Amino acid sequence: MLKRYLLAPGPTTVPSEVLLSMAAPIIHHRSPDFIPVLDSAKKGLQWLYQTKNDVLILSSSGTGGMVGAVNNFFNKGDRVLVINGGKFGERWTKICQAYGLKVEEIIVEWGYTVKPEIVKERLKKNQGIKGVFVQASETSTGVYHDIKTLASIIKEYGDTLFIVDAISALVAHDLRTDVWGIDIMVGGSQKGLMLPPGIAFVSVSEKAWAKEKTSKLPKFYFNFKKERENLARNQTNFTSPVTLIIGLNESLKMLKDEGLKNVFKRHHKLADATRKAVQALGLELYSKESPSNSVTAIMTPTGIDGQEVYKNLRKKYGITAAGGQDKARGKIFRIAHLGYTDKFDIIIAIAGIEMVLKEMGFKIKLGTGVAVAQELLMASEDI
Amino acid sequence: MLKRYLLAPGPTTVPSEVLLSMAAPIIHHRSPDFIPVLDSAKKGLQWLYQTKNDVLILSSSGTGGMVGAVNNFFNKGDRVLVINGGKFGERWTKICQAYGLKVEEIIVEWGYTVKPEIVKERLKKNQGIKGVFVQASETSTGVYHDIKTLASIIKEYGDTLFIVDAISALVAHDLRTDVWGIDIMVGGSQKGLMLPPGIAFVSVSEKAWAKEKTSKLPKFYFNFKKERENLARNQTNFTSPVTLIIGLNESLKMLKDEGLKNVFKRHHKLADATRKAVQALGLELYSKESPSNSVTAIMTPTGIDGQEVYKNLRKKYGITAAGGQDKARGKIFRIAHLGYTDKFDIIIAIAGIEMVLKEMGFKIKLGTGVAVAQELLMASEDI
Repeated sequence: MLKRYLLAPGPTTVPSEVLLSMAAPIIHHRSPDFIPVLDSAKKGLQWLYQTKNDVLILSSSGTGGMVGAVNNFFNKGDRVLVINGGKFGERWTKICQAYGLKVEEIIVEWGYTVKPEIVKERLKKNQGIKGVFVQASETSTGVYHDIKTLASIIKEYGDTLFIVDAISALVAHDLRTDVWGIDIMVGGSQKGLMLPPGIAFVSVSEKAWAKEKTSKLPKFYFNFKKERENLARNQTNFTSPVTLIIGLNESLKMLKDEGLKNVFKRHHKLADATRKAVQALGLELYSKESPSNSVTAIMTPTGIDGQEVYKNLRKKYGITAAGGQDKARGKIFRIAHLGYTDKFDIIIAIAGIEMVLKEMGFKIKLGTGVAVAQELLMASEDI
Repeated sequence: MLKRYLLAPGPTTVPSEVLLSMAAPIIHHRSPDFIPVLDSAKKGLQWLYQTKNDVLILSSSGTGGMVGAVNNFFNKGDRVLVINGGKFGERWTKICQAYGLKVEEIIVEWGYTVKPEIVKERLKKNQGIKGVFVQASETSTGVYHDIKTLASIIKEYGDTLFIVDAISALVAHDLRTDVWGIDIMVGGSQKGLMLPPGIAFVSVSEKAWAKEKTSKLPKFYFNFKKERENLARNQTNFTSPVTLIIGLNESLKMLKDEGLKNVFKRHHKLADATRKAVQALGLELYSKESPSNSVTAIMTPTGIDGQEVYKNLRKKYGITAAGGQDKARGKIFRIAHLGYTDKFDIIIAIAGIEMVLKEMGFKIKLGTGVAVAQELLMASEDI
């Protein structure tokens, strides 16, 4: 028997409470049974998003939400700015280009965060940018972009929308949609929300809704105007992913019981312990600044293949973490501390990394990282 | 306690075996664990679709599959023919128009099926039609269009694709994708396949793939070329709806154990019993010809509101059936016999209808319809 541990940056572990809530008999999405279910999910998402804006619920992966964030608010030829510091930054560019937008990129070296001044300069000298796209947490590099500062800059350009992919950051980072002024923020079910994949969430500000009226890009499935109209009567435009929305209510309940501040504190503490533990082993973080609280990207020592670390963790110890993507492939492996994770998930991860690296010939004193994590995780009683 | 019965044309009842299979710990969609899961689902769908074509698996409602059937194979200005005989026929038109196609419609009176000769004439006098869109079972009217004959007509026009929405027909009707020559056929999870909503399926013929190469419509989420490439290595382009695909394998297993012929026979028998039972009550079918084996649309007697029948079935007897949509609203109610349904689901439906109609003042001798259903359902041992 090899007991299994899921420590990947999505899908993440789904608590049994959530899994079982989804095993209840199915209800019909147009029947009165469903109204309170969607009503509760809608309000719960507004709580999590810290917003009074609509938070749309879509039957798709997170990427569907990203597509909707483009095809509902822009027009062919619109100039937009994409902050591209990883695989998911690149995805914004590809989506915008697929719909004929003119993309200008700020290329950020992988492992680094965008300098807000650069965004400021680009917006200043380059009037007429209709939207700025960024990731909150760039999953491929383990970096968190400074959404608060970026929002404050973009706010000065009245006509420019600020669009944040928070698919992997939601729940792990304190993202203040309304206070900061995020126009469109995309989330997904299989990350911090501890659900199976299959739903995307998108918050939309009034400023964005005003822009929506002028958008002429082809749309049918991701038609946000219709989703908004349906949401107002606790429906979705097309058949609702009923079971996942029932599970969503269960996971939102768990997060509410913990309290939003505590949820963020827990993610910060687990991430911090992970980072310091791997550094104590002599490993280097791939994120050179502003590391994400969702996932830690770790550089493998010279001569060791990151993909092999990932494979050995899985095969020998039952731990499903993640390798590197695209140009980071082979150079890194990644450990998520996102969603349904607590102290001993970190202990498991660090212990597993130590054993695997030692077996691969890396000089390590077993328990070194674990001890550091223990110290940090016991030090406080607040999580 | 009001025991609940789901007899709507989707979502349909999900068997406990399927619900519980989806409550297993989540696995990662890019890990080796997932490869055999998708491989099995892919092959099972080919079996169900009676095809050697790729059957793509999308994280969306069925409508997402319909959108993909348009935006991957056509270009702006392409002339297409839509057979519009109900709410879902209308949906084809709306999707095609959303993407700038030039739609010519064959309007079929609700409750009737398209005359194949009319399609033949239209194609003959109107060369250059790039695609013909139809529903197999038009859920809003309870009619089954003659897909076999339509396919044989369209086949003669080498360049014209035949696109079938089989979302509610799949499993209930024998649809021979390869033998008949259906180019694109869309299915959904929450109908005959006895799953929660959240996945769409689309089969694509080689003829359609050849057309795909020339399509320039904007696409990113529903990008079938990329889905095909991913499917070949047992992956999906974006995060797979893992739990639903696990459930899909379970429901496919149940269907395989029954055998495809028996599955179709069961649906035909249950539908036939439903139709004859309600007719024995003096009620008229809304479908004047070729009634669907998925759902029976029943006209309410003069002076009785169909929506009230639907509501009373729910409130008083815990039966969730369906009312009428759009112009059929108030005039009809609908009972599905789709997916996880057997003899006693029909008995329940008919008994419930009798009691509700009697309470609403319709002259009825209780048990009349039930007896007809019993007779038909006991007469043979083959289901």
